[in-house]
Amino acid sequence: MVQNERVKKTRAAMQQNGVDALLITTMADIRYYTEIDFHSGERFVGLLMTQDKLLLIINKLFPMLPTAGLTIQSYDDIEEPVKYVVDQLPDGITIGIDKFMASQFLLRIINMRSDLKLTLGSAIVDRVKMVKTKEEVSKMIKASQINDRVMDMVAAYLKAASADNVTELEVAAKIAQFNESVGIDELSFTPIVCFGKNAAEPHHENDETVLEDGMGIIVDMGGLSEGYCSDMTRTFFKGQPDEQFKKVYEIVKTANERAIATVKPGVKLSEVDAAARQYITEMGYGDYFTHRTGHGIGADVHEFPDVSAVSDVICEPGMTFSIEPGIYLTDKFGIRIEDLVCVTEEGCRVLNDFSKNLINFK
Amino acid sequence: MVQNERVKKTRAAMQQNGVDALLITTMADIRYYTEIDFHSGERFVGLLMTQDKLLLIINKLFPMLPTAGLTIQSYDDIEEPVKYVVDQLPDGITIGIDKFMASQFLLRIINMRSDLKLTLGSAIVDRVKMVKTKEEVSKMIKASQINDRVMDMVAAYLKAASADNVTELEVAAKIAQFNESVGIDELSFTPIVCFGKNAAEPHHENDETVLEDGMGIIVDMGGLSEGYCSDMTRTFFKGQPDEQFKKVYEIVKTANERAIATVKPGVKLSEVDAAARQYITEMGYGDYFTHRTGHGIGADVHEFPDVSAVSDVICEPGMTFSIEPGIYLTDKFGIRIEDLVCVTEEGCRVLNDFSKNLINFK
Repeated sequence: MVQNERVKKTRAAMQQNGVDALLITTMADIRYYTEIDFHSGERFVGLLMTQDKLLLIINKLFPMLPTAGLTIQSYDDIEEPVKYVVDQLPDGITIGIDKFMASQFLLRIINMRSDLKLTLGSAIVDRVKMVKTKEEVSKMIKASQINDRVMDMVAAYLKAASADNVTELEVAAKIAQFNESVGIDELSFTPIVCFGKNAAEPHHENDETVLEDGMGIIVDMGGLSEGYCSDMTRTFFKGQPDEQFKKVYEIVKTANERAIATVKPGVKLSEVDAAARQYITEMGYGDYFTHRTGHGIGADVHEFPDVSAVSDVICEPGMTFSIEPGIYLTDKFGIRIEDLVCVTEEGCRVLNDFSKNLINFK
Repeated sequence: MVQNERVKKTRAAMQQNGVDALLITTMADIRYYTEIDFHSGERFVGLLMTQDKLLLIINKLFPMLPTAGLTIQSYDDIEEPVKYVVDQLPDGITIGIDKFMASQFLLRIINMRSDLKLTLGSAIVDRVKMVKTKEEVSKMIKASQINDRVMDMVAAYLKAASADNVTELEVAAKIAQFNESVGIDELSFTPIVCFGKNAAEPHHENDETVLEDGMGIIVDMGGLSEGYCSDMTRTFFKGQPDEQFKKVYEIVKTANERAIATVKPGVKLSEVDAAARQYITEMGYGDYFTHRTGHGIGADVHEFPDVSAVSDVICEPGMTFSIEPGIYLTDKFGIRIEDLVCVTEEGCRVLNDFSKNLINFK
């Protein structure tokens, strides 16, 4: 089934931007327009959109049926699939290229058709996907409400004596089970569980580290409900946190709240980032907030746009993104507090509701 | 640590092919030259190789130390990483581009430097990686020998009465356990287990289908030993196979053996493919052998080159690839028999040793 409203919005944006054809190769984006989903591996798959055509070029290993508005062109392993793209394109037109398309295909397009004007096409698709409909927002709210319940279960589990000596990997497995118990089969991503100083490593992978007294606990998790993602981070503490932990926790929490307070239509995402970053910098921890403040989210857990210092995207109603400042003190601890927000006419709505006060166990 | 021999071979191939610089962005290839491995996600990572430089351009979120022969250039999230590539390149040179590099980076390179001549660089890297050293071949033999032992365990498991009513997913989980029991922690890929008519679907995913009398069983699996992959497929039968199954099994087995018999230095991979394909076609099943005959394998389970009708790559000693003809009869059964071979001076050596005779259970 072709998602006609989405195609219509995209064609209008193409016209506005002087893009005659869009070549979409990212599966999440092909799914967004066609509801078709599969894994083509290294084989070329492309959705070519012009003002009057919507053509899916696909290996015949993946048989697909055309639907109203969608034409299918299949190819076999001894054909050049890119030929079916360029054959559709009049001389000298501007084609928007998918940012993630493998360069081998772009090199072949360039070789066949030096007349084409190339531009980054994903910017158009990203901006259409960025603004969620009311129906999409409802699904995201529901996903986050379920994630709140799962976080309740995680907190209860960590509080129970039976969680003494648990490992990061065991907690991550529990999170998957808790999700299943509330009907969530697919996670937004592998849950991130970091104990103690592991939480200060920017790319720590869950391991066999055992939870001990005196450790902070980062839990970053989400699941898919009706095709839309939740994503939330909370930082807990096992035992009695010292003054430094408590102080840094409050700084991160305030940074999170300040960033959320700035979100409303017309505000640049760089300003949202700055609200968190400037406060953390003023408090003396600017060097330890080492990542962007957030990211767009929807059917995929990471979507355009970033909430970062260099993002000039302007908030508009229906945009959904994360706000997740953090402070990471190497060899000590890491603290991150993440919520999802949806921009409304007036400001924004926070989609999840789990408490942001510091919770410690035992 | 820089793998100097590999870099030296690659630089010689660059000179031979008139490529002044190579931009390598595929992690498996970066690892091949530097032994550095990490997940950079969407962030740019590139290894730039020229005759006198080896430069890794990497986000500062992934701190790396330079080693003898390797320079590190780190960038942060508000910088344009591609600038560090093009800054290194004299006017008008030819740069070989990684086939898998995201097009967004190639578009930015083109925008910054229209003087550069672009070509596909991966062909050079692929051909260097394609020929394994004796040490690499030893590791691949060992990996396949272990895979033989695991296949023994799978066959014994399927033979036992306790495997009655087992599902595809359960067998796949058992395969992971068997691997662990012989010291293999990482699989080459998720084991493929297909019962009955599922085996005729080209992209069936393991599911809850229950093993019943009268079903064929495809088991396609491999694991990593000392960083090198095994990969083998056998087709079993539950109960008494009928004449058609037995006949088709023998055709696939003979096709596998004929293809293996053609492998020796000087032979084109298209000829290896033809040996299997022509025989299957002669026997009347050409339309049901729907994929290439095999693929290169090494540190990664799918490497260059394909063993296919369009491959003009010529066998040379040290090349390792799979031979895996199959016949798939929709709504009936599928049969595939896969071995790994290594080209020797005289012919080839089959790396795995599990029997190719039809084994049926009970």
